[in-house]
Amino acid sequence: MIRVAVVGAAGFIGGELLRLLVGHPEVEVTAAVSSRFAGKRVDGVHPNLRSATDLTFCPADDVDEYDTVFLATPHGAAMAQIERWTGHSKQVIDLTGDFRLEDTEVFQRYYRSSHVAPHLLGEFVPGIPELHRERLRGADLVSVPGCMAVAGTLSLHPIRDLIGPEAHLDARTGSSGSGATAGEDNLHAFRSGAMRVFAPTGHRHEAEIARHVGVRVTMTATGVEAVRGVQTVCHVTPKPGVDEKAVRRAFRERYRDEPFVRLVAQHRGRYRYPEPKILSGSNFCDVGFAFDEDTGRLTTIAALDNLMKGGAGNAVQCLNIRMGWPENLGLSFPGLHPV
Amino acid sequence: MIRVAVVGAAGFIGGELLRLLVGHPEVEVTAAVSSRFAGKRVDGVHPNLRSATDLTFCPADDVDEYDTVFLATPHGAAMAQIERWTGHSKQVIDLTGDFRLEDTEVFQRYYRSSHVAPHLLGEFVPGIPELHRERLRGADLVSVPGCMAVAGTLSLHPIRDLIGPEAHLDARTGSSGSGATAGEDNLHAFRSGAMRVFAPTGHRHEAEIARHVGVRVTMTATGVEAVRGVQTVCHVTPKPGVDEKAVRRAFRERYRDEPFVRLVAQHRGRYRYPEPKILSGSNFCDVGFAFDEDTGRLTTIAALDNLMKGGAGNAVQCLNIRMGWPENLGLSFPGLHPV
Amino acid sequence: MIRVAVVGAAGFIGGELLRLLVGHPEVEVTAAVSSRFAGKRVDGVHPNLRSATDLTFCPADDVDEYDTVFLATPHGAAMAQIERWTGHSKQVIDLTGDFRLEDTEVFQRYYRSSHVAPHLLGEFVPGIPELHRERLRGADLVSVPGCMAVAGTLSLHPIRDLIGPEAHLDARTGSSGSGATAGEDNLHAFRSGAMRVFAPTGHRHEAEIARHVGVRVTMTATGVEAVRGVQTVCHVTPKPGVDEKAVRRAFRERYRDEPFVRLVAQHRGRYRYPEPKILSGSNFCDVGFAFDEDTGRLTTIAALDNLMKGGAGNAVQCLNIRMGWPENLGLSFPGLHPV
Amino acid sequence: MIRVAVVGAAGFIGGELLRLLVGHPEVEVTAAVSSRFAGKRVDGVHPNLRSATDLTFCPADDVDEYDTVFLATPHGAAMAQIERWTGHSKQVIDLTGDFRLEDTEVFQRYYRSSHVAPHLLGEFVPGIPELHRERLRGADLVSVPGCMAVAGTLSLHPIRDLIGPEAHLDARTGSSGSGATAGEDNLHAFRSGAMRVFAPTGHRHEAEIARHVGVRVTMTATGVEAVRGVQTVCHVTPKPGVDEKAVRRAFRERYRDEPFVRLVAQHRGRYRYPEPKILSGSNFCDVGFAFDEDTGRLTTIAALDNLMKGGAGNAVQCLNIRMGWPENLGLSFPGLHPV
Repeated sequence: MIRVAVVGAAGFIGGELLRLLVGHPEVEVTAAVSSRFAGKRVDGVHPNLRSATDLTFCPADDVDEYDTVFLATPHGAAMAQIERWTGHSKQVIDLTGDFRLEDTEVFQRYYRSSHVAPHLLGEFVPGIPELHRERLRGADLVSVPGCMAVAGTLSLHPIRDLIGPEAHLDARTGSSGSGATAGEDNLHAFRSGAMRVFAPTGHRHEAEIARHVGVRVTMTATGVEAVRGVQTVCHVTPKPGVDEKAVRRAFRERYRDEPFVRLVAQHRGRYRYPEPKILSGSNFCDVGFAFDEDTGRLTTIAALDNLMKGGAGNAVQCLNIRMGWPENLGLSFPGLHPV
Repeated sequence: MIRVAVVGAAGFIGGELLRLLVGHPEVEVTAAVSSRFAGKRVDGVHPNLRSATDLTFCPADDVDEYDTVFLATPHGAAMAQIERWTGHSKQVIDLTGDFRLEDTEVFQRYYRSSHVAPHLLGEFVPGIPELHRERLRGADLVSVPGCMAVAGTLSLHPIRDLIGPEAHLDARTGSSGSGATAGEDNLHAFRSGAMRVFAPTGHRHEAEIARHVGVRVTMTATGVEAVRGVQTVCHVTPKPGVDEKAVRRAFRERYRDEPFVRLVAQHRGRYRYPEPKILSGSNFCDVGFAFDEDTGRLTTIAALDNLMKGGAGNAVQCLNIRMGWPENLGLSFPGLHPV
Repeated sequence: MIRVAVVGAAGFIGGELLRLLVGHPEVEVTAAVSSRFAGKRVDGVHPNLRSATDLTFCPADDVDEYDTVFLATPHGAAMAQIERWTGHSKQVIDLTGDFRLEDTEVFQRYYRSSHVAPHLLGEFVPGIPELHRERLRGADLVSVPGCMAVAGTLSLHPIRDLIGPEAHLDARTGSSGSGATAGEDNLHAFRSGAMRVFAPTGHRHEAEIARHVGVRVTMTATGVEAVRGVQTVCHVTPKPGVDEKAVRRAFRERYRDEPFVRLVAQHRGRYRYPEPKILSGSNFCDVGFAFDEDTGRLTTIAALDNLMKGGAGNAVQCLNIRMGWPENLGLSFPGLHPV
Repeated sequence: MIRVAVVGAAGFIGGELLRLLVGHPEVEVTAAVSSRFAGKRVDGVHPNLRSATDLTFCPADDVDEYDTVFLATPHGAAMAQIERWTGHSKQVIDLTGDFRLEDTEVFQRYYRSSHVAPHLLGEFVPGIPELHRERLRGADLVSVPGCMAVAGTLSLHPIRDLIGPEAHLDARTGSSGSGATAGEDNLHAFRSGAMRVFAPTGHRHEAEIARHVGVRVTMTATGVEAVRGVQTVCHVTPKPGVDEKAVRRAFRERYRDEPFVRLVAQHRGRYRYPEPKILSGSNFCDVGFAFDEDTGRLTTIAALDNLMKGGAGNAVQCLNIRMGWPENLGLSFPGLHPV
């Protein structure tokens, strides 16, 4: 049993980490850190953990020694506190945006603030097992990517040599992406049934996809009716001579042995392309594509649960990799249907 | 054209009043009062009024003379300000809870505070055209009932002589009933898809139904997935000898000439009983019932849009009655289907 | 009062036509044609019309003489019956896909069938008041465009000289677009909360947008959680020298006097860009855009109610134009908020 | 490893059984029986099982020998085929309504048909571990109760000696209760956002609650917006002298050691009473109550996932009991939050 701490444990990502880690056979959750709820029971904030844990939240200054610390704080807080947590644990897995970009200028442009620990930017291994599994085996610092960045990256990386240099990406997301302290705009009466274009341009996750895939990315992000779930649709131009078979082969070969990526691209059926709702609670990222031979147009589609493969689940997968455990330990829930 | 003011114009009921009054052929909205948004455009808060009005909100102390003032403030504010508004207008139509109960003790029990204008409690005519049309023709003070109280009352009043002295009432409501400033509990991620029993006992509206119908009422209120919409289901015991025909006749006769109450009680079809969703934006209260001759059990069902017949629409109907206009003036929208 | 018939009156578009025409001050609905429901009451199928009409459906062969016939049948039936309806009315307004494309080859490609009345293709005036108002004044044959085609066209046409020759379009739609006889795939348990990419490429409406705007269009269509509502997001490349001001000016000037198109493109606020949910039941098409000066990227956004401006409302607007009535006659409902 | 068959494997309950049994460490799914889909892949119908199983459906006449057969067929089919399945397996767990009532007259009244295997009615042990655990250890025939019956029963049974002889029950349910072959009434456009009173009186599950609890039960069932989830609210009258403490004690003592029943009755917090949405995919039935000392009124509330504790999960719990395995084997998923 290793000892882990979750910092920012009262948030949505924090709660999902607790669900996974409390149920993980090799992990003991030693600390659920939350300033706001210190002293309160964890299941008062995360009611799905009733009867699963008797933990209470502890304040941030009540630091012990841990094997792994998960940072699920607001953006900005992770880089401000990073030295403290690296000093008390063997591994830090950061789920904020603070260490997702390598380039301080790009960071400045997308986050509208300076980075306070730029010397560490290069030290963090991106928490994308499908791209960096080997590096993750020894990684003491891991930066888990943004939810839409995971989806976009996994739907483009295998075919990056088959497409032109530009990708238009349309991302849809549920409301949990805004976090547990989202303001009045996320009141049910406003957000329910919405198709809210909240980032027509300039969303932070587009910079991550560009970094990982090596193409120029423009992205539009829209909030649609869902609590969990992200879907990305990418419009790209295949290079001359590339056909459907080549694309299918590229995806197949790349993801054949991946435990959490499935190719979903069927010509018939009710769930032909990746659909987020059947992935709620699971760690899958489903990836699909449609190739229009007439127009030479290629569309790739990805879906995941933003709190799982787009956050907490991905982080636990990274932990499993580093510890040499089966990658799906504690991550075996397959998702529900109908739902 | 009469001159009206809406106080609390930035709230949900306030916004619905503005929608109706801006579109009303005999009304000029002279003031949309909101302290919080004073100086801001009305359509910045109520985006459905884009291109319908150029009004801006004005502060509460910027008082003029009006024909009718609608009070859509938080509970408590209406009774505190009532003298001021009666001093500046011929008629006040209050949509808060402040003047809905006659008895100060009952008020104290349900609102957990003392009434500050108890001498006026008896002056307000209940804004229920179906019960008090004649008194409303001359009413200078009108108190529009709570949304669930309207539904419950209209589904019981016609049969009050046919049933025993007790009614169990189960009410379901959308999230707009909690208002535009509902707190964190009403975040979309928490409230979406919920079946939230928020008042298993003691909801304020049960006291109103008891007052209007003259039976003992116990009520449970549950928030379900909807923004607009209230549905009540009442369980009552018919008196000996009462059968389905008698119940149907009582409802039919009572509501035959009512412009906004429809009897919906069919043995087949997709919308056999009152369904709130097809009433969104309309001023209808649909009323139905099911009589189980085997068990001698009677269930009555009602549905309405809480912001319309359960609030703003009912208030405008009261205004139309007092002014001698057609009752459905400005209230002719029939609702949508499918929706 | 003119005499109108609605053919396919039991469908969703048919029902919406009935709602609008029953409430229209200059129209008498003479026939609500439905083979399947002939003899049944209209409000049994369209429960929002209870108390609004006593009409019953009539069979298709029970033909009279009309001023205007609206065709809201399944695709294919309109072109098969067109001679019959033109023989019995002064004007036919077709809401199916049958006469939306001029080119029989394009029709064949997108509809996978031959056109049976190709000689009439050029006779139909596209039912887009914003592009063809003058021609519509005298039009005996009108073809109302597809819901997503209206949104896409109105968000691109004013700037067609300011952009490159290609548009990528991402369309989201509610479930009512599939019609009242949609099959098992549209069961609530499957369709609820879905993000269903049902047409990654090749959707019929893309051919209409290409026709009306004069650019190459590739479109992806996704069903999201909503009953009514369409939103389109277009990614285009502005020509050199084009900036935000030029784009804003082009939209402003073009739509300044349009009764049903509003420019919604704000830098702050809760409803910054076009949002379908607040348009339910209204005839508005809201159009907006975001210009990213850094990347030289332009995104345009449009929203409408697919049964209204994307169907029945647009058809009634065309009727109003031809009859010389105010364009918003019978179309004044502004939409609800919150909803 | 025991060998099990699921009959009716393409339905919603069948699919949930497959999800649980495929993931169960002691079970091998030998047959997934479906006439309609025989020969097709299981994950084509249940897409959440992609990568979890390569099973294909088999026809009903392709019978082998099994340790346990689960019957998830339409009502009526189980009693017609029961001899066949008992002939080929050691245990039959029936999830239909066929063997839920002991009394053939009551059966006739609620199911409107005669029972074709009345001699077996008394042989089936009700699949309610909380009431019949000991009998279930040796049960070869188990009848899993209806979803609303489980909720109602568990929220009344512990206090049956503390209350009067009548219970009014209000039940709300998601759309999955209608099954995968629900007709046009369950189209998304009709069912979405509905509050559909589909059984104001006479729902079959009320007879089961009456049987298990020993009180007269009247029940109203309403479909609300959800795919999964059932909530019951019971109105009962406590006997003289019974207070809140007595009720709380009765629930506490009864459910203290139950692995899947939790008492949820808090005076504050966001999830004070049982809420179905956080139970999706879990096997919990949360039970709560509110006691109004003023009026002497008692309300009990229960929530569960109709496909889990209200169906497949309960069935697997019964299997675990009979086999002497830990009761939560294969049933450890705690539910999600937010969701």
